[in-house]
Amino acid sequence: MVDNALDQLLPQPEGPSGKVVEAMRYSISAGGKRVRPILLMAACDTAGGDHSQVLPAACALECVHTYSLIHDDLPAMDDDDLRRGKPTCHKAFGEAVAILAGDALLTYAFELMAHQDLGKYAAPQTVLRAVAVFAQAAGVSGMVGGQTADILFEGKPIDAETLAFIHTHKTGALIRASVEMGAILGGATHEQVQKLKGYGTALGLAFQVVDDLLDVVGDQEKLGKPVGSDIKNEKATYPALFGIEEARRKATSLKDEALACLEKFGPEAEPLRAIATYVVKRDR
Amino acid sequence: MVDNALDQLLPQPEGPSGKVVEAMRYSISAGGKRVRPILLMAACDTAGGDHSQVLPAACALECVHTYSLIHDDLPAMDDDDLRRGKPTCHKAFGEAVAILAGDALLTYAFELMAHQDLGKYAAPQTVLRAVAVFAQAAGVSGMVGGQTADILFEGKPIDAETLAFIHTHKTGALIRASVEMGAILGGATHEQVQKLKGYGTALGLAFQVVDDLLDVVGDQEKLGKPVGSDIKNEKATYPALFGIEEARRKATSLKDEALACLEKFGPEAEPLRAIATYVVKRDR
Repeated sequence: MVDNALDQLLPQPEGPSGKVVEAMRYSISAGGKRVRPILLMAACDTAGGDHSQVLPAACALECVHTYSLIHDDLPAMDDDDLRRGKPTCHKAFGEAVAILAGDALLTYAFELMAHQDLGKYAAPQTVLRAVAVFAQAAGVSGMVGGQTADILFEGKPIDAETLAFIHTHKTGALIRASVEMGAILGGATHEQVQKLKGYGTALGLAFQVVDDLLDVVGDQEKLGKPVGSDIKNEKATYPALFGIEEARRKATSLKDEALACLEKFGPEAEPLRAIATYVVKRDR
Repeated sequence: MVDNALDQLLPQPEGPSGKVVEAMRYSISAGGKRVRPILLMAACDTAGGDHSQVLPAACALECVHTYSLIHDDLPAMDDDDLRRGKPTCHKAFGEAVAILAGDALLTYAFELMAHQDLGKYAAPQTVLRAVAVFAQAAGVSGMVGGQTADILFEGKPIDAETLAFIHTHKTGALIRASVEMGAILGGATHEQVQKLKGYGTALGLAFQVVDDLLDVVGDQEKLGKPVGSDIKNEKATYPALFGIEEARRKATSLKDEALACLEKFGPEAEPLRAIATYVVKRDR
C-alpha cells in the first residue's frame, strides 16, 4: 500500500531537471522496510482513525527517512557505496544530484503534508499540529541534531549520556514522531497521544540498539550493506559501549516498555504490538 | 525587523549538536538583503494584512534561501569559498556540518510555518495553503529543479528555453512564492493573489537577470564575492546568451511588467513598487 502510494504521489521525471526526480525515485524504491509509514498508519488506526486516509503523511515520513539516508551516505558524511544492496544515490547519480535529491525529498515531504486529501480527512489545525511534530523531529532538535552529534563524535571517546543523545535524536525522534503524527491525525485524545508517544519513544530507541547490533552480528546478505561499518567509522554504538549481551537485554526491555504503553488499548493496537516484536527480532 | 526576528526565532546552540546551530546562525547572519522576507511582509500589507504578524513565515523564507546558498556553495556543487565577503559555511565548519546546517534550515522553515503565532493570526487552512505554495516553490518543481538544471547544463550549449527554465525555477519560484505567501496570509482575494503572483513572477525573473549582469559588470567589493564566477563555471546566463545591453533591456521591461500588475492597488503597494525599482537598480 505504501509502495503504491509513493509511486503515485512522487513527481514524474520530466524536463531539464528530470534527473533529480529519477534520483529521488531510485532511492525511494530501493526497498526499505517502510517502518515509519506503517507506524503512522497503525497508530492512526489505534486512535480510531482510518489508515487509508493518511497515506500522504505516511509517504512524507518515508521521503524524510530516505533523504536522511542519501545525505548520510555522502562522501563528506559516512561515505558509503552500498545501501540495501544497491549503489548509493551519489554512486549512481553523482554527488551534486544526490545532495539535490535529498533536498527535494525533504521539501516534498512538506508538500505531501499540505496535500488536499489529508486536508479533506483531518481538520487543518490537526494537520498543522502534525506538521509541527514532524518538522521538530526531523530537524536540528531531532534527527539532524542526532546525525550532527554522530558525525562530530566519530573516533572520539563517548559516554553513555552522549550515546543516548545520538540514539534518541538520530533515529528515535522520527520513529516517535511517526507514531505521534498517526495518533494526532487519527483523532487521538490527549491521553492517547501521550501513551502512543511513550510507545514510539521506546520503540525508536529499541530500533537503533538493534541496528547497532546488526552491524556487529548481522548477515551482510540480508542487510544489503557491509557489516562492521560502525567499527570502521569508529562510531559510538550501544554494543561498543556496553557489550553485545547487554545491548540485547536493553533491546528486549525497551520492547517490553513499548508494549506496556499499549496496555489500555484493545485489539486495534495489535499491529503496533506486532511491530514492537518484529523490530527486536528482525535480521535486516 | 527581520534580523531581530531571525535571531529570536532560530534555536540556540547547545548540547552535543550545538555546532550545527552555530553553522545555521553563521550563514543566516552573514548579511543577506532579506529580499524574500521583505517581499512577503510587503505583499501581506498590500493585501490588507499586518506584516508584523507574519514574521515566522518571513523568517522561514530566509531559512530556505540560506540553506540553498549553503548547499549551492558545496564542493560538489559550485565550489565557492566566499559568500557575502565571508568564508562559505563548509569553509568555516567543514562539509559534513554544512550539509547538515542546510538540511536543518530547510526543515526549520516548516517548523516556523507551523509556529503558533502564525496560527493565531491566520486561519489554519490559510497557513496550510501557504505551506503548499512554499514547498512547491522550494522543491523539485521549483528551486531545487532549477538548481539541478543549472548544474547539469554547466559547460554545455544552452538554448533560450532551457535558460528560462533555470531562471524561473532556481531564483524565480521562491521570489514569486514570497509574494504569493504574503498575499495569502494577508487575506488577499483570489484576484489579488493572481495580480501579486504576476508581480512576483516578473520580479523574480528580473532579479535573476540582474544577478547574472552583476556577475559580469558588478563590483567585487560591493558584492562580497568574486565576479566572473559564472564564466569560470561555464554557467548559462542571460548576458552570455543575449549580451549585456539586451539583458539590461530585459531587466527593465520585467520591472515595468511587475509594476503593471500593481496598477489596481493604491498606496499600500508602494513598498512593492519601490522593491521592483530597487531590484533592477541594485549594485550588490
